[in-house]
Amino acid sequence: MKDFHSADRHLGLFRLAAVLAAFSLAGTSSERTSILDPGSKVPYADAAETLRVEGLKSEGGFAILERLTRLAPERLTGSAGFAAAQELMHREMEALGMSVWREPVRVEHWVRGRIQEALILEGTAPPRPLRIAALGLSVPTSAAGLNAPLVEIRSFEELQKAGGRVRGAIVFFNHPMDRSFQDTFGAYGEAAQYRTRGASEAAKLGAAAVLVRSMTLRLDGFPHTGMVGYAADVPKIPAAAVATLDAEDLSRRLARQPGLRLRLRLDCRDLGPVESSNLAGEIRGAEQPAEIVLLGAHLDAWDLGTGAHDDGAGCAQCLEAVRLIRALGIAPKRTIRVVLYPNEEFGASAGRDYADSPRRSGERHLAAIESDRGGFLPIGFGLGSAASFEKLKKWIDLLRPAGIQWVGPGGGGADIGPLGESGTALLAFIPDAQRYFDHHHSANDVLAAVHPRELELGAVVMAVMAFVIAQQGI
Amino acid sequence: MKDFHSADRHLGLFRLAAVLAAFSLAGTSSERTSILDPGSKVPYADAAETLRVEGLKSEGGFAILERLTRLAPERLTGSAGFAAAQELMHREMEALGMSVWREPVRVEHWVRGRIQEALILEGTAPPRPLRIAALGLSVPTSAAGLNAPLVEIRSFEELQKAGGRVRGAIVFFNHPMDRSFQDTFGAYGEAAQYRTRGASEAAKLGAAAVLVRSMTLRLDGFPHTGMVGYAADVPKIPAAAVATLDAEDLSRRLARQPGLRLRLRLDCRDLGPVESSNLAGEIRGAEQPAEIVLLGAHLDAWDLGTGAHDDGAGCAQCLEAVRLIRALGIAPKRTIRVVLYPNEEFGASAGRDYADSPRRSGERHLAAIESDRGGFLPIGFGLGSAASFEKLKKWIDLLRPAGIQWVGPGGGGADIGPLGESGTALLAFIPDAQRYFDHHHSANDVLAAVHPRELELGAVVMAVMAFVIAQQGI
Repeated sequence: MKDFHSADRHLGLFRLAAVLAAFSLAGTSSERTSILDPGSKVPYADAAETLRVEGLKSEGGFAILERLTRLAPERLTGSAGFAAAQELMHREMEALGMSVWREPVRVEHWVRGRIQEALILEGTAPPRPLRIAALGLSVPTSAAGLNAPLVEIRSFEELQKAGGRVRGAIVFFNHPMDRSFQDTFGAYGEAAQYRTRGASEAAKLGAAAVLVRSMTLRLDGFPHTGMVGYAADVPKIPAAAVATLDAEDLSRRLARQPGLRLRLRLDCRDLGPVESSNLAGEIRGAEQPAEIVLLGAHLDAWDLGTGAHDDGAGCAQCLEAVRLIRALGIAPKRTIRVVLYPNEEFGASAGRDYADSPRRSGERHLAAIESDRGGFLPIGFGLGSAASFEKLKKWIDLLRPAGIQWVGPGGGGADIGPLGESGTALLAFIPDAQRYFDHHHSANDVLAAVHPRELELGAVVMAVMAFVIAQQGI
Repeated sequence: MKDFHSADRHLGLFRLAAVLAAFSLAGTSSERTSILDPGSKVPYADAAETLRVEGLKSEGGFAILERLTRLAPERLTGSAGFAAAQELMHREMEALGMSVWREPVRVEHWVRGRIQEALILEGTAPPRPLRIAALGLSVPTSAAGLNAPLVEIRSFEELQKAGGRVRGAIVFFNHPMDRSFQDTFGAYGEAAQYRTRGASEAAKLGAAAVLVRSMTLRLDGFPHTGMVGYAADVPKIPAAAVATLDAEDLSRRLARQPGLRLRLRLDCRDLGPVESSNLAGEIRGAEQPAEIVLLGAHLDAWDLGTGAHDDGAGCAQCLEAVRLIRALGIAPKRTIRVVLYPNEEFGASAGRDYADSPRRSGERHLAAIESDRGGFLPIGFGLGSAASFEKLKKWIDLLRPAGIQWVGPGGGGADIGPLGESGTALLAFIPDAQRYFDHHHSANDVLAAVHPRELELGAVVMAVMAFVIAQQGI
């Protein structure tokens, strides 16, 4: 077994920091001894090193993701493709030696249909098609489609000022994501409200439909879909995303020619709710099996691409983390459980169902780690509650060799969130997100956009955290 | 002017860390006041924020790199293409308001020629071509080419054991980069010795030529070139890189059929040394012009791709950093100088020439920052000497909003290195390197492999550091 110093050889620039950390950790007598590394200066350093070396040498996470995106490329919740993905992941988990089961839940079943057409009608010129995609849960247009004037709106303030102008019109929300954010999720959060709330806000003023600029920082030809959130007491109007290049073009045309009309046809349909299930598998803890460390990701994905980053990457990382831990050859003291959720893209109801299930009685979820920010370079680890912060911070030296640079506040995730109510430590694996929205919810979210080493380092980080918590508690 | 809290809005998860840092910095009275941010809690935080916002909104670094790789795609030192690149960058620097000049240096002038042929001769089967590229500075084969048996060698130890078996043979160094390194530069450093030293080590045993497995962690069809380092007192033998996929294939064939022969033809030639120059440009300091902060990168690039990452990215970042600082509208107290070097790929002689030039008398280089690790996500900032470490560490909070996660030991760079001898603080901008060797020295090093935001964040980091040092010293 390699000692700390042999691991250290690989760390290059991190050497000094690691050595300093070793000294500070060595002072904590309760962590000095370990079943794994009795002679090691850094508890679990050898295990973390083994997990990293095995991961990077094999790139096993990419192999899982390759199978998932090839054999089950269509994973929209409620679809036959989603069921096929569950079958595949069920078999993959069994092949890893896990006990696997399903917990029934109700989910949406929305289908895109075959018609997504938006034609600019400009005088006598031939109708000009825009690259659009219906938003998830959108109602369809009539079979004949809508033919209405376009009104460009850049903010909700502008919408209120427009008032009566939008009655009967197609509101074109052209609110770009703000490039100046370093954290692209911040920019997304700010802009995505036009996709989630835009339809109902426009419908309150009598709009006939909405066209929403795609949520991406790139200028490209991909419409990026996502869920529309209809308010309960407002008429539901059709909603579609338009590619950013087409949004820019449309904006220029409208400046020249106010009152330009659009013909919009969508035949998407809502067929839900239907039966589905949370897919769970576990390696039962050898000493405290009722104490659980959960690794979570969502198996559903938008139908435009193959959901390679969102959230195939997370699913692959959960399974790869288990594979790596198995490869250590040490039975974890506590249970390590993977849960792959449906319906995240339609509101993450299955995470709530999991937390509220009667099956949770007698179980204690110590920690839950979600991966749902793409398969990019690991940079940080977020913690939702402050309770275990000090312990987690000390473990950062185990994560650094896999690229983690910080541990900070901000944990959780859409699916694991509800577990926090019963005291589970919610951890978020945070990869870099500069490229995430280039792919997110679009036909550009494909395997070729995932780098095997970046994906694997995320799986390693999750494996290290899950294993250490399974052995040490939190 | 935005205050600290408006900057903070954008930081998401970094909020707590930034606030804590603000308190600790606020206690340092000497840094409390600043010409830039008289009311700010964090000195220079407003300037850093302005640099970041301007950079990310404009993505100006990518525009520079686009022009460089389109208008001067071939930049092998000593070539007409390199001269064209110097002309272009000269004009770009003048357009940024910089005083620009050149300092003559001698450089290599090696040309690849038109013939790079490696054919596996396997019984009566048609000759099978391998994807190869001559190594830089390699001698050619005879016009007729070599026809010799292949001997596969995995390490220098194995080479010594092979002894007489390699006499007259083509040594095939099949030493893969070690995937288990998190720091891919570590894996590169370990494997690249077969490219740099392999030819002479094999020649000492009478080998006729060497074929070296490409230095990349991917299995692909791109040969990755690089310089061969001939020892002084050993016959020079031809040397070429072979794509990793072809190396794997060749290895399997050799296992089945020892004694397999290869026909190798290269007509590369060494035409050097010739005259070239360091290209320098500066914004003269308003108060202490003889004190200089240097930003450095190398303008030469391998001819197989367009040198987009290596080191077009570094050149673009140096110029973009100056553009961003100009956009602040504040004259730096000290001089900010950009130096774009030739000949880095042939041994980095021009950095030594720059440091040793009589023009340096009367100048004091406070700090030098090199960017030569690709245009990827910024993760760290390395410092070569410990002298200014404490000051630099305090500035990390200015770099964090652009993505920098650590400041640590390990600065410098091939070109700025010699400045360290006269006390210049050597800083290395460290981007992530998981993807770097996918592209390095190959036809795969092209603009499409560079992400505009990742590139720009590096330029922002360099601008912040250069500006703060120009104002504050180090």
